[in-house]
Amino acid sequence: MTQKATFYHAGCSVCADAETNLANSLDPKAFDVEIVHLGKDKARINEAEAAGVKSVPALVIGGKTYHINYGADLSALK
Amino acid sequence: MTQKATFYHAGCSVCADAETNLANSLDPKAFDVEIVHLGKDKARINEAEAAGVKSVPALVIGGKTYHINYGADLSALK
Repeated sequence: MTQKATFYHAGCSVCADAETNLANSLDPKAFDVEIVHLGKDKARINEAEAAGVKSVPALVIGGKTYHINYGADLSALK
Repeated sequence: MTQKATFYHAGCSVCADAETNLANSLDPKAFDVEIVHLGKDKARINEAEAAGVKSVPALVIGGKTYHINYGADLSALK
């Protein structure tokens, strides 16, 4: 069974790079990765915030949040 | 063929968590992940620094460095 992983980004270059090299590098046998563009899908900002996302890009796996480098504060996307 | 990925850490709890959930989650068909404990293997701090690592935990993939959350500054390990 695959585990859900959610990659939150905002279309920035740091985000795109992390998406290509990290989010897309997770084991496809173990993870079902959803890519969420918070700049376009603002309705999900609250969900990201509730998961502990402070900045993008960030990857949420098993309820834990991993901030990867730094693109933009979540507050800047509201 | 697998690509080399290097996960640098210093045994901190943030590091251990990132190792379990991220470094060990990379696609084993695509990546050969090496785990380096810079607290124990200080000879490799220079190598990490040259790769752009500023803090641990960090993952270096294809010459790019991804700082994952924040455990400790590299300078604190010297």
